[in-house]
Amino acid sequence: MSSTAVDFARQNYPRFLDELKSLLRIPSISTLPEHADDCRKAAQTLATEMQRIGMENVRLIETSGHPLVYADWLHAAGKPTVLVYGHYDVQPPDPLDEWLSPPFEPTIRDGNIYARGAVDDKGQVVAQVKALESLLAATGKLPLNVRVLFEGEEEVGGEGIAKFVASKPPELKADFALVSDTELFAPGLPTLCVGLRGMIYTELEVKSSRTDLHSGMYGGAAPNAFVSLVHILAKLKDENGHILIPGFYDDIIPPSAEELAAWKSLPFDEEEYRAKEVGSKQLVGEAGYNVMERTWARPTVDIHGIPGGFTGAGAKTVIPAKATAKVSMRLVPGMTPAKAFALYKSYVEKIAPKEVDVDVRLIHSGDPCLIPVNNKYIQAATRALHEVWGKDTVFIRSGGSIPIVGDFDRHLGLPSVMMGFGLPDDNLHAPNEKFHLKNFELGIISLIRFMEEAGA
Amino acid sequence: MSSTAVDFARQNYPRFLDELKSLLRIPSISTLPEHADDCRKAAQTLATEMQRIGMENVRLIETSGHPLVYADWLHAAGKPTVLVYGHYDVQPPDPLDEWLSPPFEPTIRDGNIYARGAVDDKGQVVAQVKALESLLAATGKLPLNVRVLFEGEEEVGGEGIAKFVASKPPELKADFALVSDTELFAPGLPTLCVGLRGMIYTELEVKSSRTDLHSGMYGGAAPNAFVSLVHILAKLKDENGHILIPGFYDDIIPPSAEELAAWKSLPFDEEEYRAKEVGSKQLVGEAGYNVMERTWARPTVDIHGIPGGFTGAGAKTVIPAKATAKVSMRLVPGMTPAKAFALYKSYVEKIAPKEVDVDVRLIHSGDPCLIPVNNKYIQAATRALHEVWGKDTVFIRSGGSIPIVGDFDRHLGLPSVMMGFGLPDDNLHAPNEKFHLKNFELGIISLIRFMEEAGA
Repeated sequence: MSSTAVDFARQNYPRFLDELKSLLRIPSISTLPEHADDCRKAAQTLATEMQRIGMENVRLIETSGHPLVYADWLHAAGKPTVLVYGHYDVQPPDPLDEWLSPPFEPTIRDGNIYARGAVDDKGQVVAQVKALESLLAATGKLPLNVRVLFEGEEEVGGEGIAKFVASKPPELKADFALVSDTELFAPGLPTLCVGLRGMIYTELEVKSSRTDLHSGMYGGAAPNAFVSLVHILAKLKDENGHILIPGFYDDIIPPSAEELAAWKSLPFDEEEYRAKEVGSKQLVGEAGYNVMERTWARPTVDIHGIPGGFTGAGAKTVIPAKATAKVSMRLVPGMTPAKAFALYKSYVEKIAPKEVDVDVRLIHSGDPCLIPVNNKYIQAATRALHEVWGKDTVFIRSGGSIPIVGDFDRHLGLPSVMMGFGLPDDNLHAPNEKFHLKNFELGIISLIRFMEEAGA
Repeated sequence: MSSTAVDFARQNYPRFLDELKSLLRIPSISTLPEHADDCRKAAQTLATEMQRIGMENVRLIETSGHPLVYADWLHAAGKPTVLVYGHYDVQPPDPLDEWLSPPFEPTIRDGNIYARGAVDDKGQVVAQVKALESLLAATGKLPLNVRVLFEGEEEVGGEGIAKFVASKPPELKADFALVSDTELFAPGLPTLCVGLRGMIYTELEVKSSRTDLHSGMYGGAAPNAFVSLVHILAKLKDENGHILIPGFYDDIIPPSAEELAAWKSLPFDEEEYRAKEVGSKQLVGEAGYNVMERTWARPTVDIHGIPGGFTGAGAKTVIPAKATAKVSMRLVPGMTPAKAFALYKSYVEKIAPKEVDVDVRLIHSGDPCLIPVNNKYIQAATRALHEVWGKDTVFIRSGGSIPIVGDFDRHLGLPSVMMGFGLPDDNLHAPNEKFHLKNFELGIISLIRFMEEAGA
């Protein structure tokens, strides 16, 4: 590769890694109100860094929640403009006792850096910033016009950025978006993600009595919020993974025969996936669909937790007056969050036992999306990746949700290039999250080369 | 009533109330390890008090958990010996935000004293001690031989006292037990409890994967511990309150026709019970059984909480690797904890989805019991109560469990007189627990007169 920017990145890699560690030490957990100051601190750290490397118009943009970070460099006359996106917020680290090293003390073991946010998404955000720094430092300019927009609410629904994007501000005028929040299909295999599931995240609350009751005195006559709730939850999905909400599958657009054939040719060992990645006795899911289809092209229902009642050590003989399940559903192309939520809510209200009150609340949602692979930025990305990784790019989807990709499309007309460098076993949202250091390094180089190709 | 002890109690009632308040200020929560010192402090307070009033051989008896408090006075030659029982430990106060006054700052409102433990069981323990004090102070002696045994683990299974009782120590040689941990059937209605449900308190743990997983990446293919758990829990009891565990009802001894007829004549308004006491939209339970039968003579399944997963504010898109339900069952005469647990465990293992591991653990248990009403101590209690309350005593059962009553019978051959003074709306195990002050006062007087009658 004859790129002075790539040379700069290689020479400065040890410093880049130190700077990633600094960012990882900030516990910018967006879901927990007590970490609001940490979120702002992470935003400020990124802003300061962009100022230092030569980006312009750097500033924090306030939202109803955590701030956005904006910067631009717009001196590549006649060249396209990329909108670079990432998020500086992270998931809560619980359960804490399962981490081998503290979640906010980045630790290197076996060629990986372990920390909450290592791969999702601070490691990838830092890779983007270091690509820009390398280009600016080595050449004094950028090969295309660049706008950067980082958010701090991705893990909590992205309300702030959604509103900002929907307002179509002049700061976001661009030709395409570069989103680095995805992963390689397999180690060493360059990958572009061209489809995402959407989601609705909900709370299902059941109230059974005015106050908690003694289970000895009242057990057998008084309704129990948890008992009613488990009866409702058990009817959302049968034991074969089939969702029982009427109409839930009606609008699904299935993948094309060509796409299904490409998925079948991916290097995938279901037994290894079960044993090493999922770590379960068996996989579950709908009959007639393989793992790729189940996780990329079929909707789901998952339960995340059921706060309420007695959760301490030992025994408390209480009939809880209230129980709340955190329930989410992943949606696939063809489905909309609004209709999915309406179907779910009306079904729950219909099946709820008559002795309890139910309240179904939408916490946040995101649209599913599908990117056409024949656009020129996807083609430029493919060329850059081939050069860096020495292999043809595979096009995959992700089962996860990046609602902003749908927003960029709907409000700004931007196709997204989802170029990310995570690995399937990086423990996203789980204890011992990591980022493979080789992927951090090659990620920076890939992003440099992609910007060079896109601006060529 | 011509009892100088009763006169003493009436004259000293304001001081008795202050002493109750002092005991209620000690947060002796036996289920929470961090309150072990408070449990010991409550035990020591009672021991010091019994020393002061003239009881003998006062001491703490160490157990594997919180200490027992022992005292005796054995100078009534030729008279029977009573074993006085109560417990100084209390339930946790959560949910804290529903208390109108702090749970460990006793507060008097509308003729009631509000605090955790007010009625369960510190108020009743103090009533026993004050009855003994009144008799000793007014007459210089007791009308019968008295042994006192207070425990600090009633709310956590009573392991310590169970072992001590099972060892049949000479300190517990007696003719009958006096247990004050029950309630009046209705305000002003003297009541003796002659039957208790037993129980098994269990944890049902489901493990679905090695670690928590991202619900976007893996949702649809990876098992979810909460989803599997709710399918198991929904099969424990159907939506009509019928328990689905095979054989669970087989050994039940139903109440006699005479007992059922007596229950029907009790002053009970089901609609008022639903609206004011339970505070639910509807009552639940098995068809063909009234509320008394459902809560006193039929077994139950209740879920108390489901720790694990994500329970914080907002959203975390995780597939939890583990979920644990706290599940208890109340047992009725004819049933045994060992058989009930074995049936439950084997049923759960049979119905558990094949993709998860289940572990069913017994946390603690207690036998159901039934006291014959024709023994002379029950007769003496009936006479004393008639004199104090001006009404005939009603014989009821309780849906709750007092395992020690079964232990006193099985190991020591002692019939128990369950004479308690709570009210149905005292909020046991719930926020705003209270004790009606009139019942505290008449309780002390009833206990004095009962001891006088039992020793006559």
